[in-house]
Amino acid sequence: MAAPEHPACRLDDVVHQRVRLGILAVLGQADQADFTYLRRSLALTDGNLSRHLGVLEQSGYVEITKTFEGRKPRTWVRATREGRAALAAEVAALRELIGFYEEVT
Amino acid sequence: MAAPEHPACRLDDVVHQRVRLGILAVLGQADQADFTYLRRSLALTDGNLSRHLGVLEQSGYVEITKTFEGRKPRTWVRATREGRAALAAEVAALRELIGFYEEVT
Repeated sequence: MAAPEHPACRLDDVVHQRVRLGILAVLGQADQADFTYLRRSLALTDGNLSRHLGVLEQSGYVEITKTFEGRKPRTWVRATREGRAALAAEVAALRELIGFYEEVT
Repeated sequence: MAAPEHPACRLDDVVHQRVRLGILAVLGQADQADFTYLRRSLALTDGNLSRHLGVLEQSGYVEITKTFEGRKPRTWVRATREGRAALAAEVAALRELIGFYEEVT
């Protein structure tokens, strides 16, 4: 039985994982976001957000900058060019996967 | 900083995980598919497909039936009503997430 390559084969776990996809999607809408905003937007714990930001940073998909506003530390996160490209590829694969699905429903 | 609930919060790991999303998407297009077809369509190893089918079966999202054609065993997989509903919810969340993304690009 011949089978064409399915768009699911083009999904990359680094970007596709639920929390990381959420982070990149938020960063795709804003130039940068701070840690607290990401944590609240995605309803995450500090530890969970930190862990997934670490994976994205190690893959070169986000840059993390720590600043001080007065004495208050603030952590800023920005998607790199590679991160934006990875999100675009994920969205393209998802659009194709959803398109397949919608043809039959 | 107020933040609306992000659609990523509605993604469920059981369905969202890359391989399992692929399996449910294939089953969303066909009434049922056999093990070999799924394995080839999604470019998986036997072990990887078996493991993820097990997760979906335990969640009640697929039904697995073993038949014989002559002496050749054949394993059929079918999405349950719950599996189809879970895929529909995933697709709705993804569509919203992608929609957010497309507004700004």
